Amino acid sequence: MSLTIKLQLTSHRHNLNHLNLGACLKNTNFTTTKFRPKPIYHSDPLISIVFHTHKPTMHAPKRSAQPSSIKSSLIDPDGGALVDLVVPESDRAAKTLEAEQLPKVWLTKIDIEWVHVISEGWASPLKGFMREDQYLQSLHFNSLRTKDGSVVNMSLPIVLAIDDETKERIGSSTNVGLVGPDGDLIGILRSIEIYKHHKEERIARTWGTTAPGLPYVEEVITPAGNWLIGGDLEVLKPIKYNDGLDHYRLSPQQLRKEFDRRQADAVFAFQLRNPVHNGHALLMNDTRKRLLEMGYKNPILLLHPLGGFTKADDVPLDVRMEQHSKVLEDGVLDPETTIVAIFPSPMHYAGPTEVQWHAKARINAGANFYIVGRDPAGMGHPTEKRDLYDPDHGKKVLSMAPGLEKLNILPFRVAAYDTVQKKMAFFDPSRAKDFLFISGTKMRTYARSGENPPDGFMCPGGWKVLVQYYESLQSEEASQQTAVLST
Amino acid sequence: MSLTIKLQLTSHRHNLNHLNLGACLKNTNFTTTKFRPKPIYHSDPLISIVFHTHKPTMHAPKRSAQPSSIKSSLIDPDGGALVDLVVPESDRAAKTLEAEQLPKVWLTKIDIEWVHVISEGWASPLKGFMREDQYLQSLHFNSLRTKDGSVVNMSLPIVLAIDDETKERIGSSTNVGLVGPDGDLIGILRSIEIYKHHKEERIARTWGTTAPGLPYVEEVITPAGNWLIGGDLEVLKPIKYNDGLDHYRLSPQQLRKEFDRRQADAVFAFQLRNPVHNGHALLMNDTRKRLLEMGYKNPILLLHPLGGFTKADDVPLDVRMEQHSKVLEDGVLDPETTIVAIFPSPMHYAGPTEVQWHAKARINAGANFYIVGRDPAGMGHPTEKRDLYDPDHGKKVLSMAPGLEKLNILPFRVAAYDTVQKKMAFFDPSRAKDFLFISGTKMRTYARSGENPPDGFMCPGGWKVLVQYYESLQSEEASQQTAVLST
Repeated sequence: MSLTIKLQLTSHRHNLNHLNLGACLKNTNFTTTKFRPKPIYHSDPLISIVFHTHKPTMHAPKRSAQPSSIKSSLIDPDGGALVDLVVPESDRAAKTLEAEQLPKVWLTKIDIEWVHVISEGWASPLKGFMREDQYLQSLHFNSLRTKDGSVVNMSLPIVLAIDDETKERIGSSTNVGLVGPDGDLIGILRSIEIYKHHKEERIARTWGTTAPGLPYVEEVITPAGNWLIGGDLEVLKPIKYNDGLDHYRLSPQQLRKEFDRRQADAVFAFQLRNPVHNGHALLMNDTRKRLLEMGYKNPILLLHPLGGFTKADDVPLDVRMEQHSKVLEDGVLDPETTIVAIFPSPMHYAGPTEVQWHAKARINAGANFYIVGRDPAGMGHPTEKRDLYDPDHGKKVLSMAPGLEKLNILPFRVAAYDTVQKKMAFFDPSRAKDFLFISGTKMRTYARSGENPPDGFMCPGGWKVLVQYYESLQSEEASQQTAVLST
Repeated sequence: MSLTIKLQLTSHRHNLNHLNLGACLKNTNFTTTKFRPKPIYHSDPLISIVFHTHKPTMHAPKRSAQPSSIKSSLIDPDGGALVDLVVPESDRAAKTLEAEQLPKVWLTKIDIEWVHVISEGWASPLKGFMREDQYLQSLHFNSLRTKDGSVVNMSLPIVLAIDDETKERIGSSTNVGLVGPDGDLIGILRSIEIYKHHKEERIARTWGTTAPGLPYVEEVITPAGNWLIGGDLEVLKPIKYNDGLDHYRLSPQQLRKEFDRRQADAVFAFQLRNPVHNGHALLMNDTRKRLLEMGYKNPILLLHPLGGFTKADDVPLDVRMEQHSKVLEDGVLDPETTIVAIFPSPMHYAGPTEVQWHAKARINAGANFYIVGRDPAGMGHPTEKRDLYDPDHGKKVLSMAPGLEKLNILPFRVAAYDTVQKKMAFFDPSRAKDFLFISGTKMRTYARSGENPPDGFMCPGGWKVLVQYYESLQSEEASQQTAVLST
């Protein structure tokens, strides 16, 4: 039995030593306390203390016998223990046999990305696709209350849709087998709950619009079935993509191990779905400098490109990974203090709602600092000539989000091309006319036309990767046009 | 300086005495503890303890010198003290003079309803129209974090819209004067903040749809300006409507006083915007019985019809109040243990989002039990042939909502007309065919056509009020048609 006490301090100057917490436990049946260090930078410092009636049992990971490998000491995973839903190899044969006997649910490519995300604990403490109570909390409160009463952030519904026919086939079975697009058995969903998929409401509450043209909605939600199926997930073996990039797909457990191996005393995560230009690099290097000034000795950067579904005009993952490699090769970022890995989640383009998910997942991966910039996870409005989200809402919402109090949010200073210094620099409003903002669209136009961006915008090696990608795209388009003409 | 400790117990059987909390404070500069009794019925009991460095100052109400009058002992107002924003009479002249000098914001009839709601503390701890940080928390999390770190429920954005011209007129002024539709000075909004009114996003996140035809959207949001103005409210004098119903408009402070005067040991609130039929009465009387069985000696019913904006085809407030009077006169509800009062909020018809507001406001009014039924605050989808909300979502969302942990949620058992017993009774699924569900639409059809509903559906006195209302409506329609024909 455990009991959580949350201390919510009204001031940064509050001295915790004023509270004689040890005395609390005298002559009681509670024996252990656990302190979480006070976050820096966050406006609402919150410290959780967990009292246990017995010494807390170590939540041993299923994949490994070393309990120390499941977390670095920097930040606890949500729910206290990292979820790991891959069945041990010794059980695989039996579980596969069981899965074969069950009614089947066929998964799409993006469903598999979510299976990957859930199974490795990015969404800890979530242990499967959401049941209705979790779905409703996520949709209305962007958070889940856990069994011990504490609140974890959970801003996106992580759900699995099925159609009427599948629902009928499942009948009254309590478990189902999950099958990939190629017919491979992927896993089992246990103690299932089937409930209505209210698509309009899900879309409106997640994106704040129901306008046609939202990429994830068109790709995933509109074609999906009218039911959602929740339950506890078991995955028969680790999800692999065999695209030459699997070595970049480090699980939260592997990342935490790596941070420990490097003896990181701070980990700052940078989420991205675009090529890295020197403005990004400036900001990451500046963040490192600030952390050193704050007294950290070994801050590590987690450069963490999103690897799941992205919209058609985003630069594909393999090209981005090559570009990121060049940025490290060219010395723009320091390989000694940088870890490049892939975040396996699909992209929603849901702005302030989604940025919370991006931050929450990085807590589980062991990052205790999170960089947030202008209009995170945003895009243009699909039917109107404006940004879909207020560009400032992302960081505001993130800084107030329930369950993210333990994460240190680092607001992004806007970088732009300084035409006087001829390099990317932090924007100085007092000489605004000296700065050139180079948008993603503008960057693509340069790369497509073979024109070079201003000197110092991106390292030459990285830029070359993009130019080659757009050249290959154009020659592909040309050959398609030729093919069309010749038929 | 204060510090809140939240105990989140993992089990109802947890004995608080196991924790030696007094010892916590020994040799510290914290001196006072305040316990909130453990809620019954709620799945996540949560107890807040506030530590103060000094003895807590009593938050004296501005209207009264007796601190004891601001709360009954049953449930604390959100934020600990009931907000009261009506300026003391002695300051009225000076404040009026000040308001006259300020740039003006003109209020609509519904804005005034919100001024009323905020000024009397129904939305405690909210002290004015929302600034952007409150608006965003409300929209995304349905809750607000207060300065002491605790969370209060706040599911509807309570905001004031202004147009471009008003924004320009305000210029750099930090305060504005509020003017009613008739030109009367209503109050002052201080330390204002003006921010964008993202209407589409507000609608989508509040209603879970952007379909045309939502009553509050069409009446209030669509015609409103493109900016929202937040700030601290001061109201020059109590809001009155002079419609013969003001004596029913008891403030939260007055209600708490009345519960104390009646020595209530439990108060159960029933929110409604429709006439009371015998199914409602059955449920309210049954609730009282259950509370007596639980050991309460004097449970009081707060019959609390909503008095602000309602859609055109709802029964108007004056007719409903007359109908409710008859229900008490006819002895269907016991006047000795019932308080009838008006809840001044406008209606959003926003289902699961709005039911939280309805419950939260009743906490501030001193009710510690809240009855919730099928599809609370719901309506038909404006463009599709279905309910706008899943009828079960309201009570599910309410039972999990952040900040409502201290309120005891009493789920509604469905009552219908039992054609065998010839009275309203709790629906028995084992003999479903014996039951007749009489919807609001069906009831209106009976009343309009002069046909009597089944015997025992509603007390004769109450039914007569409705019949007379629909007759007057028809004769009004007829005379309008005659007028049209004769022109």
